[in-house]
Formats: sequence, structure tokens, C-alpha cells
Amino acid sequence: MSRTEAKSRSDVMFEAEGRNASKFRADVSVPMRKVARGTDFRPTDEGALPGGDGTAPVPLVHVTSGLSACIMSRLRAFSKRFDFDVTEFFVDCRGHWQAHQHGNLPYVGSLLGVTIGIDLRGSASKADKRGLITAVEKGRFIEVRCKPGIVKRPLKVGDGWVEV
Amino acid sequence: MSRTEAKSRSDVMFEAEGRNASKFRADVSVPMRKVARGTDFRPTDEGALPGGDGTAPVPLVHVTSGLSACIMSRLRAFSKRFDFDVTEFFVDCRGHWQAHQHGNLPYVGSLLGVTIGIDLRGSASKADKRGLITAVEKGRFIEVRCKPGIVKRPLKVGDGWVEV
Repeated sequence: MSRTEAKSRSDVMFEAEGRNASKFRADVSVPMRKVARGTDFRPTDEGALPGGDGTAPVPLVHVTSGLSACIMSRLRAFSKRFDFDVTEFFVDCRGHWQAHQHGNLPYVGSLLGVTIGIDLRGSASKADKRGLITAVEKGRFIEVRCKPGIVKRPLKVGDGWVEV
Repeated sequence: MSRTEAKSRSDVMFEAEGRNASKFRADVSVPMRKVARGTDFRPTDEGALPGGDGTAPVPLVHVTSGLSACIMSRLRAFSKRFDFDVTEFFVDCRGHWQAHQHGNLPYVGSLLGVTIGIDLRGSASKADKRGLITAVEKGRFIEVRCKPGIVKRPLKVGDGWVEV
């Protein structure tokens, strides 16, 4: 079997530890034990409205940056893997979440949709760029759960956007 | 209709903008336009192995903190809503992701499972604590997509853990 046909598997274990003492502030630490050693401190808080103190980014910021960070890292990694000429690129992630509440009961939430617009610069063909985005989708580390087919990843072509 | 029976709906729109200039470093900004105004800068990078410069947390850190931050914020909000006595609490989030690769092609990834251990201190009963965790699950902002039933949220009771 040639090297290019070999199958391989990678396992990644991940973890976080969080403590909340009383209000909304939560101290979250993400230890990295293998390649990227060290512990990242990623606290979160809420603003004044629900009773927080605004000492750290709200949970939504963590989630939105997570979606974007994963996709952007894979776009770069896979463009190198395919040897596509992708220079600079831009991602624009927009989502819509909805909560339904009866009286004072806790709400029930659902994610209605996410659109991640991808603007890839460089001389790679439109077909190659579409292939790259499809590969990125399959390589997902995390995927949002919402109505089937609602996550969209349009590609910028000239001044417009095309579905991938 | 009494106030406690009223139904209400909340819509939350979220967005992030990211730019990648050449290597793995991506500058991600998360603008907050409503209650929590301001823009959070949440860059990401990879370590040296895939060709990054280690200038910012890897995407995995963003995702793991996002999972933890969402759950912790809802635990606090809903314990107040239910008026359960929950003082300090701890969350331990552990996950397993796997990638399969053929030769030098981009990998195909899947999230095999996530376990989020929840240790709630305070005098709330075990039944109330279970009810709180169930409500938190329904209020999800984001949910990881993996094999059905694989996301677990055990509750710490004494020195052991029980499934919720």
C-alpha cells in the first residue's frame, strides 16, 4: 500500500473545568495536555440585565468564536493539504437563536440557523474553493445542532455569494 | 391570562468576523450590539506542529470554553428562576473527537461523546438538582452534534455520580 493510500486515525480528548461561586461569573480553565501544553483561562460572565457583573465575555462570545475559529483553522489546514492557492480569507458567521418561555419558567432554546460566509482570496478556482469548503464541513470538530440543512456556508465569488 | 401563564419569545442574533492573512493565526472579533455592547477580540492560532505560531488559543479551547460557559450560565440563571438553593458549583467537561484520514487527504472528523459532570453545592434536593440539569439541557444555546444520546450530564451525589 502506498503512503498516499494509508488510513490513519487521530483521537483528541478535550476537557474544561469550571467553577461558579455565586453569581454569573464562572472561572473556566481549559488544560491542554498534549501538543499545545498549558492551560487557557477562559472566564465568562453575564451583563447586568440577568444579574451578572460583566467581568468577562458572555457565553455567546465563546460559542461564536469557537464556531469561527474551528472553520478558519480547517480552511487554512486543508488549503495547504490540497495545495490550493488561498492567500487571505475572511469568514462572516451569523446565527439566530430563539427561546420560548412560559411565564417565569426556564426558557426552551433552539438554534434556528447559522450562515458562515467565506471569502477566499487567491488564485484557486471556484471549483477548488467549493471543494475546500466541502472538506472543511466534513472535518468539523464541532457542528451546531439546528434544523437539518440550516447551516449554510456560502462562498464569495466576485461581488456575490454562491451556495456550496 | 395570569402573568405566570404568559408565553414569550426571545430572539438572539449573533455574529463573528474573522480574518486570516496567511498562516494559522486568525483574528476573530465578536461584536455585541444589544445588551452587552462592545466587541470581544478572540483570536485563534495553532501550535508549531501543523505550522502555527502559537500566538493565541487553539480552536479547541474556544469550543470547550463555549460548551462550559453556556451550561454554567444557565445553571445559575435557572437555579435562581426555580429558587433552588444552589451555592457554589463545579462543571467538568470532557469530550472525545476522532478524525479519520486516507493518505494525505483532509481528515473527516466526528465528535464521539461529551460528558459534562455537574457538582451542585447547596441544600437543593437531589430531585431539584436533576430537574435543574434537565431544564438546562432544554435551554441550550448550542448543542454538540454527535451520536444520539452520547452527551451525558451526570450529577455529583456525595462521592459518586448519577445519570440525569
